[in-house]
Amino acid sequence: MASRKLLLLPGDGIGPEAMAEVTKLITVMNAEFGAGFETEAGLVGGAAYDAHGEAISDADMERALSADAVLFGAVGGPKWDDVPYEVRPEAGLLRLRKEMELFANLRPAICYPALAESSSLRKDVVEGLDILIVRELTGGVYFGEPKEIIDLGNGQKRGIDTQVYDTFEIERISGVAFELARTRQSKVCSMEKHNVMKSGVLWKEVVAETHKAKYSDVELTHMLADAGGMQLVRWPKQFDVIVTDNLFGDMLSDVAAMLTGSLGMLPSASLGAPDPKTGSRKALYEPVHGSAPDIAGKGIANPIAMIASFAMCLRYSFNMVAEADRLEKAISDVLDEGYRTGDIMSEGMREVSTSAMGDAVVEKF
Amino acid sequence: MASRKLLLLPGDGIGPEAMAEVTKLITVMNAEFGAGFETEAGLVGGAAYDAHGEAISDADMERALSADAVLFGAVGGPKWDDVPYEVRPEAGLLRLRKEMELFANLRPAICYPALAESSSLRKDVVEGLDILIVRELTGGVYFGEPKEIIDLGNGQKRGIDTQVYDTFEIERISGVAFELARTRQSKVCSMEKHNVMKSGVLWKEVVAETHKAKYSDVELTHMLADAGGMQLVRWPKQFDVIVTDNLFGDMLSDVAAMLTGSLGMLPSASLGAPDPKTGSRKALYEPVHGSAPDIAGKGIANPIAMIASFAMCLRYSFNMVAEADRLEKAISDVLDEGYRTGDIMSEGMREVSTSAMGDAVVEKF
Ligand SMILES: CC(C)[C@H](C(=O)O)[C@@H](O)C(=O)O
Ligand SMILES: CC(C)[C@H](C(=O)O)[C@@H](O)C(=O)O
Repeated sequence: MASRKLLLLPGDGIGPEAMAEVTKLITVMNAEFGAGFETEAGLVGGAAYDAHGEAISDADMERALSADAVLFGAVGGPKWDDVPYEVRPEAGLLRLRKEMELFANLRPAICYPALAESSSLRKDVVEGLDILIVRELTGGVYFGEPKEIIDLGNGQKRGIDTQVYDTFEIERISGVAFELARTRQSKVCSMEKHNVMKSGVLWKEVVAETHKAKYSDVELTHMLADAGGMQLVRWPKQFDVIVTDNLFGDMLSDVAAMLTGSLGMLPSASLGAPDPKTGSRKALYEPVHGSAPDIAGKGIANPIAMIASFAMCLRYSFNMVAEADRLEKAISDVLDEGYRTGDIMSEGMREVSTSAMGDAVVEKF
Repeated sequence: MASRKLLLLPGDGIGPEAMAEVTKLITVMNAEFGAGFETEAGLVGGAAYDAHGEAISDADMERALSADAVLFGAVGGPKWDDVPYEVRPEAGLLRLRKEMELFANLRPAICYPALAESSSLRKDVVEGLDILIVRELTGGVYFGEPKEIIDLGNGQKRGIDTQVYDTFEIERISGVAFELARTRQSKVCSMEKHNVMKSGVLWKEVVAETHKAKYSDVELTHMLADAGGMQLVRWPKQFDVIVTDNLFGDMLSDVAAMLTGSLGMLPSASLGAPDPKTGSRKALYEPVHGSAPDIAGKGIANPIAMIASFAMCLRYSFNMVAEADRLEKAISDVLDEGYRTGDIMSEGMREVSTSAMGDAVVEKF
């Protein structure tokens, strides 16, 4: 029996509640299927700051680096609005991404048939939607230097951030997008603003070269990121895989997520490069929704995004494809049977708590 | 009779066709109402590049600076995809914005009742929508230095752009947003990414200070820009005025525009600071849609965004409020009567050409 090391970082807000439902699944998988998951838990975000004044401790950072995969809940909340920039809750997540070198963020935007009605878009526009946003996660304006506020005197300050991309960073993220496209509809759309940004000019050029050199079987198109945002709203089904930089990916994947009408349902995976010898890669799995402090602690949060993130973990970190498929099927079955947490509740459905939703998924699994 | 100097820069693609419909209106206003418009025409974008190798000539730039207002069509198209970066069509528009110091870009996203059906969003989500995005237009990552591609050797290049905001830039754009909010629902939502960008930290701080110092009668909220994109899709009517930076404004205003289902209908105004003596300000008016090269020259483009931009020009540059109101009313009347260009055509309506649509508006005016 393989040993599979998981680090759980539930974080803040609804993170711990959602994570609790995943641990139920882990327990069942270990007991009934001998899955051999070994879990450790750590602190991140506001929870870590409250405990020791940092958004993640070095010890937890070490654990993350040596785990086979990290499951991450959510960070942040008004409680920590005024903590210093360097130790704000988000800094924990950004440090994990950077030190684990998780350059590839995979964000599927899937519209569950049972939920097509809860989208703010017309049903015909989103029904059956299945797109994948591949976002570069360790570069761009998130990490470029200088990043600072300078006091210019006379009551004037200057805020500076720097967007930086090197050829190799664009090459590797577009490689991930092309590889994934081959397992789907074989279409990639790359988005940037080459009409105003030099990093966009380089982005477009390197994606095109990578395509030509190694992936010319995949269909590649280019779109300006602003037009991309529009097209996502107009007719999202035109897309299969979208590849874009860190900041555009942040914006576009949130818009795409909201199209589906089921933000509380959407998972994400953040992956490093595969080890050339073992093929294994560092990975962190995280729901797309945030910490939702307004509903935290009430037992009403939707745990499905966290559970679906665990399904991605089974698939990408442990190659447990059958189990991942089964877990995803369990999620749709539970929805088909009418189980709904408050965020996706609609007439005639059965409103359940976080924990009852988790139990229902475990039951079906 | 006042003399009113307009510079017309129709540009590329459908720009000239759309502009032709505005010139009909100008002719009528001069002849029948003694409006005293004096027009000159210039070249911008690909048209300017083809004529003299630059995206706008110094002579036309001079004309723009001395006009009371500039009417701008659209720039760009595949024909100029490979021209050097410095003279690409967009460079003409960016030079106009920068040298005219048009720091305030006003983009209303209005859902015309007659067109609520043509949105990809549910009718209840967009019907009656009326929000205004105030985008900073002369700063941020569009203009910050360094902005370059460096050859690192070994086949590696580095693309760099710099996001820079100074206190005074944030102060003046938020002032515009607060002032405009007072004429509307008195609500401003400021969007940035203070959780990852230092310019976002400064942005949020300065907007809050400006609010406290001079506009505390207006309701101010702050939202992360990615969440803002989501909320625009989820329930756009929660917003009145949104104020944001150049790049986020580019993305968010395009998403907002697409919500309305009528991109071919939406105008924008780009304004400079009022002259302390005369109160007059430099201004450029431009439809939100682009040059649409695929339908250019066919006489089927929707001229309404360009006409509505002229209505904004009447309002903001010439204080011709009654005429602006009348022109906007003429647009909705024509829609109510069923006139549609191809882009907004739906069953039972009357499909007309660019020129017939323009005539219908002139007729109603
Ligand atoms: C929490 C925040 C730092 C983060 C980001 O901006 O990347 C979040 O919005 C996300 O998309 O994962
Ligand atoms: C044409 C382009 C340079 C421009 C921009 O990015 O600002 C356009 O997208 C806009 O929004 O006006």
